[in-house]
Amino acid sequence: MALDRLKSVASHLTGTVAPPHPFDPLSNAEIESAAQIIRTAKGKVAYNAITLWEPRKQEMMSWLADPEQAKRPKRVADVVGIVPGGKVFEALIDLEEKTITKYEELAGVQPLITMEDLQIVEHVVRKDAKVIEQCVLSGIPASDMDKVYCDPWTIGYDHRFGSDVRLQQALMYYRPHMDDSQYSFPLDFCPIFDAGKQEIIHIDIPEVRRPVNKAKPNNYHPATIEKEGGYRKDIKPINITQPDGVSFTVEGRVINWQNWKVHVGFNYKEGIVLNNITYNDKGTERPIFYRLSLAEMVVPYGNPEHPHQRKHAFDLGEYGGGYMTNSLALGCDCKGAIHYMDAAFVNRAGESTTIKNAICIHEEDAGILFKHTDFRDDSVIVTRGRKLIISHIFTAANYEYCVYWIFHQDGAVQLEIKLTGILNTYSMNAGEDTKGWGTEVYPGVNAHNHQHLFCLRIDPNIDGPNNTVFQVDALPGAGEVGSAENPYGNAFYAKKTKYSTVEESLSDYDGATSRTWEMSNTNKLNPYSHKPVSYKLVSREVPGLLPKPGSLVWKRAGFARHAVHVTKYHDEQILPAGRHVPQTSGEPSRGIPEWVTSNPSEGIDNTDVVLWHTFGITHFPSPEDFPIMPAEPMTLLLRPRNFFSKNPALDVPPSYCSTPSQILGGKGVVDATDRESKLVSGKACCK
Amino acid sequence: MALDRLKSVASHLTGTVAPPHPFDPLSNAEIESAAQIIRTAKGKVAYNAITLWEPRKQEMMSWLADPEQAKRPKRVADVVGIVPGGKVFEALIDLEEKTITKYEELAGVQPLITMEDLQIVEHVVRKDAKVIEQCVLSGIPASDMDKVYCDPWTIGYDHRFGSDVRLQQALMYYRPHMDDSQYSFPLDFCPIFDAGKQEIIHIDIPEVRRPVNKAKPNNYHPATIEKEGGYRKDIKPINITQPDGVSFTVEGRVINWQNWKVHVGFNYKEGIVLNNITYNDKGTERPIFYRLSLAEMVVPYGNPEHPHQRKHAFDLGEYGGGYMTNSLALGCDCKGAIHYMDAAFVNRAGESTTIKNAICIHEEDAGILFKHTDFRDDSVIVTRGRKLIISHIFTAANYEYCVYWIFHQDGAVQLEIKLTGILNTYSMNAGEDTKGWGTEVYPGVNAHNHQHLFCLRIDPNIDGPNNTVFQVDALPGAGEVGSAENPYGNAFYAKKTKYSTVEESLSDYDGATSRTWEMSNTNKLNPYSHKPVSYKLVSREVPGLLPKPGSLVWKRAGFARHAVHVTKYHDEQILPAGRHVPQTSGEPSRGIPEWVTSNPSEGIDNTDVVLWHTFGITHFPSPEDFPIMPAEPMTLLLRPRNFFSKNPALDVPPSYCSTPSQILGGKGVVDATDRESKLVSGKACCK
Repeated sequence: MALDRLKSVASHLTGTVAPPHPFDPLSNAEIESAAQIIRTAKGKVAYNAITLWEPRKQEMMSWLADPEQAKRPKRVADVVGIVPGGKVFEALIDLEEKTITKYEELAGVQPLITMEDLQIVEHVVRKDAKVIEQCVLSGIPASDMDKVYCDPWTIGYDHRFGSDVRLQQALMYYRPHMDDSQYSFPLDFCPIFDAGKQEIIHIDIPEVRRPVNKAKPNNYHPATIEKEGGYRKDIKPINITQPDGVSFTVEGRVINWQNWKVHVGFNYKEGIVLNNITYNDKGTERPIFYRLSLAEMVVPYGNPEHPHQRKHAFDLGEYGGGYMTNSLALGCDCKGAIHYMDAAFVNRAGESTTIKNAICIHEEDAGILFKHTDFRDDSVIVTRGRKLIISHIFTAANYEYCVYWIFHQDGAVQLEIKLTGILNTYSMNAGEDTKGWGTEVYPGVNAHNHQHLFCLRIDPNIDGPNNTVFQVDALPGAGEVGSAENPYGNAFYAKKTKYSTVEESLSDYDGATSRTWEMSNTNKLNPYSHKPVSYKLVSREVPGLLPKPGSLVWKRAGFARHAVHVTKYHDEQILPAGRHVPQTSGEPSRGIPEWVTSNPSEGIDNTDVVLWHTFGITHFPSPEDFPIMPAEPMTLLLRPRNFFSKNPALDVPPSYCSTPSQILGGKGVVDATDRESKLVSGKACCK
Repeated sequence: MALDRLKSVASHLTGTVAPPHPFDPLSNAEIESAAQIIRTAKGKVAYNAITLWEPRKQEMMSWLADPEQAKRPKRVADVVGIVPGGKVFEALIDLEEKTITKYEELAGVQPLITMEDLQIVEHVVRKDAKVIEQCVLSGIPASDMDKVYCDPWTIGYDHRFGSDVRLQQALMYYRPHMDDSQYSFPLDFCPIFDAGKQEIIHIDIPEVRRPVNKAKPNNYHPATIEKEGGYRKDIKPINITQPDGVSFTVEGRVINWQNWKVHVGFNYKEGIVLNNITYNDKGTERPIFYRLSLAEMVVPYGNPEHPHQRKHAFDLGEYGGGYMTNSLALGCDCKGAIHYMDAAFVNRAGESTTIKNAICIHEEDAGILFKHTDFRDDSVIVTRGRKLIISHIFTAANYEYCVYWIFHQDGAVQLEIKLTGILNTYSMNAGEDTKGWGTEVYPGVNAHNHQHLFCLRIDPNIDGPNNTVFQVDALPGAGEVGSAENPYGNAFYAKKTKYSTVEESLSDYDGATSRTWEMSNTNKLNPYSHKPVSYKLVSREVPGLLPKPGSLVWKRAGFARHAVHVTKYHDEQILPAGRHVPQTSGEPSRGIPEWVTSNPSEGIDNTDVVLWHTFGITHFPSPEDFPIMPAEPMTLLLRPRNFFSKNPALDVPPSYCSTPSQILGGKGVVDATDRESKLVSGKACCK
């Protein structure tokens, strides 16, 4: 790696490689260069993040329109760090001029918690006398402190401690043996860690005490499985091979596949960022989305007892979906022919680090794309589909989130998220009543009710930046049975409601009307339907935020109050719960609520807009989810509506196609069925 | 085939093969035997259906519990036909005694329309003078009647004609060339065909006339694609191979896969019927569902103008999802190693017919089943999942429905339906206003709004037949922020509402509470959670019936009035819109409404119940859906909740697994990653 990096730096300096695409994440060399500039100017600081300061949109749109002539947006680093004494600084570095163009120190804000921040806490709690005392009270000998573990979470917000001191809460566990899962042995107290002092400043101790679980370990690793009868032996391999390679090309970080073109970015907070998504519609490269990302999420837990109200992790804003991303393994996380991209970050010392194989890009068979048989003559077409998947997986302490951005040949973009990993657990005494706030998933283990609410940021660019969002509800027609306008009572239609201002756009899901939202370019009508070219958001897993208005979560996660908010585009509005999320009090609410309230009547009709969509699931755990949870999938679609003048996938080669005249004439039939498929009986492919 | 059949008959007669499983569909030999018995007794009749009269449940449960000792349910054929003069008869044939045990002639009912019934109409309309006259008026020369086509639909119900005369409505189209898609050339009039007289008895002619479309053909077959630039050449093959064969075994029609056992039946109306679904939970074969099927569907169209109110096909009850099923092709409809099952039916003459490869059974890779990485030490487990898919595809005139019953290793059963094929279209004049009831998807082509509403029949057997259904809503806890019971306002829980009587169970979907329904055995509690063992219906595509109360569709498709109805089990209650659906007036409503109103207070708590679930989509067409529609998927899940005491898939071998001690010790790591996967760069698999 060191050699690779040297080579990369060298070739960049000597101009032997193309400059990075303006959307490219900062390279290791750029990160180190930015850190060096800060270090020179400011001395030793703790680096929290060095990431791409994304090009301002107007400038970027000009460049995208004419990359040969237009001014190339500069490479700028966005730096966040902590100066000695604990104050946070933000800086912008012009990487070409090698200058600091902005530098500011802020009070009362806390940047996210890095993996390095997290790692420290466990070591501190194990040595803390008061924590040891609590462990002993829980039934763990003081000599067993190496068997005590903690998942350090940012404190969220606790009014007793405010926002000035950087804090983490340590969710405590015990492991009888180092290979045991600690989530079956939760402890009932919660130390508070001061990152500045590097010590435990408080312990929250519940009134009802719950000694450490005496149940036997509940594990998922091979030794346990072997002891309980061993692994299944009846799963025969399924091999997925691509002998001629993949159907996409990679130019830098731009992927070209089946008329789609997309730039694949990555940052420490959002993880994958997809930019400048276009579709080549018979020779015309049509813009669809300027930028797509999962921009925030919150996981509120529903147990009202102190201090569980603090459990509402903003996994992206407080920890970073990029920082927590997994290094993926071939044939394991993905199968087939894989293209990986690495991710470059900064560590606390200002050195660049790399997560190898952070992003996986691969294709999968997508089953039947379309089919029709004519019942008269058995003429038939069967065309199989293909999909392109751009994915990453991040581990947020106990949970894993597998994020799949999926491109389809029919013009749809799908976001699928699989939730797996391990439930967050709390201790319970034998016979204790969960009061409906959780489920005993294993003796002595209470898994609390929770929600996973994600915020998808959609920056539409439907044939240009001036777009309008409509709410679409499926409704019966006016008039009862027997009326002149609806004599048979069967009339129904799509009611479209235009959002003209930001405040009009604050809307919830309505399952009863199968509500969807259309992002439309009202300046361009479909030649056949005469309706505006559009992409429709089809999302069916849209629970409301269950914590009540005025609650801590409601205040801090303002984005989750509605399924949809639409705002006018502003360069700095990327993160829906604000830029620095840990220890925000929610007073005022950061992110979307401040943008909305700053100008609720701001016009969003036929202008550059952003649609923020909150979706997710409410999870009432059950024993099936433990000791490790089978992946629970959820999905949503962005579908072209009146965007194309016909099915854009008609030119995907069919597997089999016969027309009536071919059937009569007995020739000309297209038969491209896959010859690798076999009958179970062993016979070869047949028609 | 003839030889095969003789052999099968012979071996059955000589006792060299095991008798059929009581759930097995009738064999060709059994069908012919039943027809012969009727023929001998009643002379020449027109056969509409000969299908298995399913064993009565009580008898069948006894046999399933003890197949060696209990009395084997008899093979009985359920025969429907039409006697000369047009009356419908129903008969039951004891195939062992070769006797007619029931025979009844019915007035005022019409059995479904068979493919043979459908095929006739087009020939008749082409020769009918009044139809020719209308074609000429539409701009089609009388000499071009061979270019006139029709999709014959049952008339549904038209009060002018009632139910006594067997009728079809002919949706008319024109094909300029025999290989053109007629759906771009709809005609504006609608002949009514009398199946008894074999002639057109009426033509519905709209007030506003719309001559045949003058637009150029809009096709999807190769000649057109070649003319418009040809097929894509950049799709590289993805091969899916199973060198060691499949992971399931087949015994008769019982499939054994990954602890699941299921009998795969098939009938002419519902298509696939899954019976006696059990899961082997560490040696105990636990019943889960007695029977699962898609039992009915309705596709109401939303244009209020006459005669479009008649467009609301009950594709299963009026035509038969089995009768319309496709013969599937290897490497085309499914990839990998495939096991097919054929379907046997009767034709009008009483001969048995066979649809080869009617059911496809195969496995697919299912991506990550579960994963967790410990952030402290990078110990990790990644386990990939597998799924078993039992599918068929049926063509309902213009549309195709691809039905996938999917079994997962985590205990979930998924039903996925893909809609593809071609939109039903109607003609429109240039500049005509669709008034919101449809979309001009191509010049002169109006695709009307419609819904696809399916009725899933679930006969639960959750650790036994006595089950109870609960409605589950995710709700905030009581008490506002600051209250004693909910001080932080974050409390939320699953509110469970028991359905004690049939009328209590009539319920709609509520997206705001993420409503689900649990089928529980309240006599058996999970050992850890102490909650009843359950399966949960998770379904998110649940639009209401948009035609109004009192409308024809509302009256005829009573099952679609609610998302869920729960009834007490009765052997004869299989088909939710009634046994003979064509030309029912809806007065009274057949099927579920009659069962509900016959005894609304019937108890359904802790007894043998059936849950009927109506789900689907509302489709507002757009040009992307034409001239052939990219498959639109919809899905629902039946998930175990508190059924297992832990994740039942823990013993699926991991692709990769390392524990903390193995990482420290440097050995013992499980590495079973798929060696067939490759990097795009060509490098082999690595870790």
